[in-house]
Amino acid sequence: MHSSERLLIRALRREDVPRAPVWLMRQAGRYLPEYRAVRAKAGGFLEMVKAPELAAEVTLQPVRRFGMDAAILFSDILVPLEAMGMPLLFDERGPVLPEPLREARHVDALEVVDPAATMGFVGDALRLTRAGLPDETALVGFCGAPFTLASYAVEGGTSRNYAHLRRLMYHETALFERLLDKLAEQVARHLDYQAACGAEALVLFDTWAAALTREDYLRHALPWTRRVFERCTAAVPRVVFGGAADHLLEDLAGVGADGVAVDHRTDLAGAFERTGGRLAVQGNLDPGALFAPPAEVARRTRALLESVAGRRGHVLNLGHGVMKETDPEAVGAFVRTALEFGGDA
Amino acid sequence: MHSSERLLIRALRREDVPRAPVWLMRQAGRYLPEYRAVRAKAGGFLEMVKAPELAAEVTLQPVRRFGMDAAILFSDILVPLEAMGMPLLFDERGPVLPEPLREARHVDALEVVDPAATMGFVGDALRLTRAGLPDETALVGFCGAPFTLASYAVEGGTSRNYAHLRRLMYHETALFERLLDKLAEQVARHLDYQAACGAEALVLFDTWAAALTREDYLRHALPWTRRVFERCTAAVPRVVFGGAADHLLEDLAGVGADGVAVDHRTDLAGAFERTGGRLAVQGNLDPGALFAPPAEVARRTRALLESVAGRRGHVLNLGHGVMKETDPEAVGAFVRTALEFGGDA
Repeated sequence: MHSSERLLIRALRREDVPRAPVWLMRQAGRYLPEYRAVRAKAGGFLEMVKAPELAAEVTLQPVRRFGMDAAILFSDILVPLEAMGMPLLFDERGPVLPEPLREARHVDALEVVDPAATMGFVGDALRLTRAGLPDETALVGFCGAPFTLASYAVEGGTSRNYAHLRRLMYHETALFERLLDKLAEQVARHLDYQAACGAEALVLFDTWAAALTREDYLRHALPWTRRVFERCTAAVPRVVFGGAADHLLEDLAGVGADGVAVDHRTDLAGAFERTGGRLAVQGNLDPGALFAPPAEVARRTRALLESVAGRRGHVLNLGHGVMKETDPEAVGAFVRTALEFGGDA
Repeated sequence: MHSSERLLIRALRREDVPRAPVWLMRQAGRYLPEYRAVRAKAGGFLEMVKAPELAAEVTLQPVRRFGMDAAILFSDILVPLEAMGMPLLFDERGPVLPEPLREARHVDALEVVDPAATMGFVGDALRLTRAGLPDETALVGFCGAPFTLASYAVEGGTSRNYAHLRRLMYHETALFERLLDKLAEQVARHLDYQAACGAEALVLFDTWAAALTREDYLRHALPWTRRVFERCTAAVPRVVFGGAADHLLEDLAGVGADGVAVDHRTDLAGAFERTGGRLAVQGNLDPGALFAPPAEVARRTRALLESVAGRRGHVLNLGHGVMKETDPEAVGAFVRTALEFGGDA
């Protein structure tokens, strides 16, 4: 099957499809016992990301178990930062960048690199995954958006208040923009590289976009989100994700992506209206709803699908990633409901 | 001056006022060196909360320095949980409740108590604060909403995924509702108690409301928010705050409060429209904007005030609390701009 025939790709191209394709953000992860088994042997998160056989294996696990329509590569949005020269590790707090960028010399030292030469493990994992996937299942690659990568690079990890980032953004705007320039270039290369290695759709995660008001996002982040989509030349559908960014939906719909992912606090049918029917819309069951009993998960999933039935370009997903405490049975109920929706297949 | 003549109270009653009153959520706090000095001597956060002289002193500090139109009592939304029988401490992670409620016997053991008998330090701090405030400055009391208190009580602290809370909410709904029943009763008593001790306006903080989709908030939280306002009989204006709850604005406007606080990702003029002009609206400068240079803070503050100039019931505030890394100069620029807006005072 050519990738363009796969359900996810057809839906992202807003073709007429028999049902909405389904996949889940962070579907390869700690909520699955088979994932935890691989991880226990691998040693750590980053070790798995950099071992193509292991990354491919955990990418395939949820597809084997649930049969969703797409696999998203097991990797991390911060991998390109490490390739650019920033030490990166993961501990119980999450990602840690022990040498955060705070001054001009730090930004100047950051190097835009060739993904094939520095992150070959990503390409290898994509190729291994494609070889192991069922023919009808699409393969999704991804990267963090420049603003979100900058927030990690400047804060040195996840942050509550983004105090360092805001100081740089407001007080040393030119330096902040030089950082975003470099990141946008690296991100575009990383997306193109993944497409060249077999990714059939790409998601750009601007996970922390909602940290900013609309005024600040338009001024300090969106131009570089748009630049990524301008520079990325891969002929595959692209989706932009903005976290809990309902206030940015119309803006994100205009950055050059083919689809926009919406949070579970955004009304899904409303999102189609607000984006003028020009884009595919991905979403948006509350990942917290997966803590409900399976019958209730199925009910909510059906209600969501019914609310946009007949619209072109719907890709069923969560509003955010699967949480580690999730019962796999709930994910099963979600996927099964989607696969059976509106047909007798 | 009778409290009904103070600017904040008049604005919350939607009377015609010469300018919007201004105060800041978490205005007494770590960003102020004079606060840190008191705290260093007090030993800890909870020790300050329970020492009326210290609580009153830090409540008065920002008013002395900036001259805003209201003081909000220095306290914590979790104080009533401790009074109900839950051990409470604060460490570098924030609040910790080492005996979280997970089973029926835990909920049954929770006791609805008389605030005067168990939290007299709150009343004492309010009286001391009132005595130290300028005549024209209003005094604000507050409490956490039942859903937010339940999230702390069940999770045992702040939470990322609310896994325990969601399990209780979805799988043991009757037990969860018994917990909310008790909390709503305690919260209403706590608000009435504060009004009796001199609080001239009350804010109900449903800080984690945005953790829920609208469907879940309407089902599992809002009825108890409404009940608090029904049971609370104090004849003072009441404001409801929902965190980043743009998706709940119309619903929160209908719970019985006189005003609704809006997040900085909500359009302020739009919030007046969406609430039908029936309520006061509090907000909503981005607390992150206080990291900008003072001139930029002033520019944004003016733009915000101009966007709703002429509307009754605007109370200028941030969209969320002051961050600890904030430069006091920025708070000064914010307050000064508000005090000088639209007049030659």
